[in-house]
Amino acid sequence: MADEANPAGERIMADRLIQFIAECYGAVGVAAADAQKAAELMAASDLAGADGHGVFRLPQYIRRIRAGGMKPAAHIEVRRTAASTALVDGDNGLGSLAVARAAETAIDIARDNGAGWVGVRNGNHAGAASVYAAMPLPHDMIGIYFAVGNANHLPPWGGIDMLLSTNPIAIAVPALEEPPLILDMATTVAAYGKVKVAAQQGKPMPEGWMIDRQGKPLTDPSRADDGFLLPIGGYKGAALSLMIGLLAGTLNGAACGRDVVDFNKDDATPTNTGQAILALKIAAFADPPQFKRQVDIVIRDLHGSALLPGFDRIRLPGEDQHRRREERRVRGIPLPPSLRAALDKLAADLAVTPLPARG
Amino acid sequence: MADEANPAGERIMADRLIQFIAECYGAVGVAAADAQKAAELMAASDLAGADGHGVFRLPQYIRRIRAGGMKPAAHIEVRRTAASTALVDGDNGLGSLAVARAAETAIDIARDNGAGWVGVRNGNHAGAASVYAAMPLPHDMIGIYFAVGNANHLPPWGGIDMLLSTNPIAIAVPALEEPPLILDMATTVAAYGKVKVAAQQGKPMPEGWMIDRQGKPLTDPSRADDGFLLPIGGYKGAALSLMIGLLAGTLNGAACGRDVVDFNKDDATPTNTGQAILALKIAAFADPPQFKRQVDIVIRDLHGSALLPGFDRIRLPGEDQHRRREERRVRGIPLPPSLRAALDKLAADLAVTPLPARG
Repeated sequence: MADEANPAGERIMADRLIQFIAECYGAVGVAAADAQKAAELMAASDLAGADGHGVFRLPQYIRRIRAGGMKPAAHIEVRRTAASTALVDGDNGLGSLAVARAAETAIDIARDNGAGWVGVRNGNHAGAASVYAAMPLPHDMIGIYFAVGNANHLPPWGGIDMLLSTNPIAIAVPALEEPPLILDMATTVAAYGKVKVAAQQGKPMPEGWMIDRQGKPLTDPSRADDGFLLPIGGYKGAALSLMIGLLAGTLNGAACGRDVVDFNKDDATPTNTGQAILALKIAAFADPPQFKRQVDIVIRDLHGSALLPGFDRIRLPGEDQHRRREERRVRGIPLPPSLRAALDKLAADLAVTPLPARG
Repeated sequence: MADEANPAGERIMADRLIQFIAECYGAVGVAAADAQKAAELMAASDLAGADGHGVFRLPQYIRRIRAGGMKPAAHIEVRRTAASTALVDGDNGLGSLAVARAAETAIDIARDNGAGWVGVRNGNHAGAASVYAAMPLPHDMIGIYFAVGNANHLPPWGGIDMLLSTNPIAIAVPALEEPPLILDMATTVAAYGKVKVAAQQGKPMPEGWMIDRQGKPLTDPSRADDGFLLPIGGYKGAALSLMIGLLAGTLNGAACGRDVVDFNKDDATPTNTGQAILALKIAAFADPPQFKRQVDIVIRDLHGSALLPGFDRIRLPGEDQHRRREERRVRGIPLPPSLRAALDKLAADLAVTPLPARG
């Protein structure tokens, strides 16, 4: 992550970044309240250290809106389809707004019914999965989130036609005194956002992220088009990606498979991105404080494990993110020079106030 | 799998195997209807080719009942905790019976509410995850199943203390003309049942299944106690195992982490095994035939992919299992000599009619 690689680099405080993002959205026709909410959701990815999912994506989103591929003024529709289910139609607006509505709806449903599953269709790229999976946490709920990735970089196992995406799963479980456990994983060894970040930073990728069409390792991120991502656990990861694509995409009438639009190459075609979120009320199964205390015990037991040679500590899902969020809240979000330049160019294009010069 | 490795080997028809299993259960005090149901559920694992989860486990289950670690006459309690949730207490009886009740309850709930999530506590090892995930399929529902494994063979990532298990996830989605897609994956590269089968067959394991405490590959299954299983995707698989353990175990008041009993070594201590199943009604999101037709399209697109060097076809999750089930229904379930001997010994111990001699 950028802050660890370059601790002395430029940073921007989250509030200022949110203001900038909201102004950019406003400049292309997003209503003020939506622009503010979408800006906060985008910065949440940056705060969590999901650098490939936050403001790094802003120029692309804006380009997409200007190219007619995404609506700045969408009318999100929430349709309750059964006592515990709903379907959100994002009307091809900002993906974050549709998924946040889905999460809010799932939480409302779970409050009354114990569990709520909400699907999204006609959405768009929404940022880091962990942001949405974590939304049920303050309500003493568990969150489970599935999404269809916005470009197919994964073939079926044994194939070379890229018909699947990095389709992530995220699961968030609260603890009592420990930070919540938040898994956020692409079903590929690396998310494609990480490839984009490596390309932007001009850094080679480790072996194991991608292979070429002959099955040979591919480590130059500028050659990403010559190969594809590798799934975790071989056939298992490819199969998990497929099942997530069916749950988050096909079931909701959203794209999965060959109808997925590569949003990195095509700014004009609506993506019909799909996502799904489940909120599960802890009180339907256990006394919430007692459950969270038990989660603390599991966490502490795992931390107490003796180590394999070469490791200095046990890292549990969400811990690095939690630490990074706390640090970035205080010290600001890192802005690598290439990102800074891209945001300055965006500000000039949109005639909005650029981010302040490095202080 | 045994039938592919030894196509001319001994086989037993499923009906006859079910009768044998039910008689064994009956001999240790399981009521007739429960014995029949548990026998059918066990044989379902064998039919699907999950050889480490079917009748292979019968001697161990019987040993456990005789040692007082599992109740033959348990009273399963189903408590509806909210409109869309329920908690099943398995009363430390046969795991399959508790999980089947959970699946049936989830289906009933989803019929009325769109989604139903049911947790299990005080259960036991229940066999192949795919058997339960597939139960919602005939009801035009999707099934998602999580379970806590019955022995800790996985340390947290970077550690050597075995505090996690192979905790599987299974997801079943129906298609129209194609077989259903059924993912059933341990979060480790290999399920421990496969290690047990390799040990029973005296075959080495491939590199990548296990490492020893120094991090070196371990391929001799008789040395399994000297090492641990490797998670899929490195830290991702270990994290996924943890989250599944919390959902299927901790949330239900069932074991997860250090309180997991190694049921391969300890026949007397109740395992308090936990599982969870979600049934999701397709009609709450889409017209079921239309959805299933779309799944067919995705399946056919994936099958149509050009191949990587070294592959002869695209295999999607559940396809091999489906083919094997069709074949085993007709030709019978393979009985390797070591398994045959173990079942003959069991029949003698319990004074039940042994399986017929090879005909």
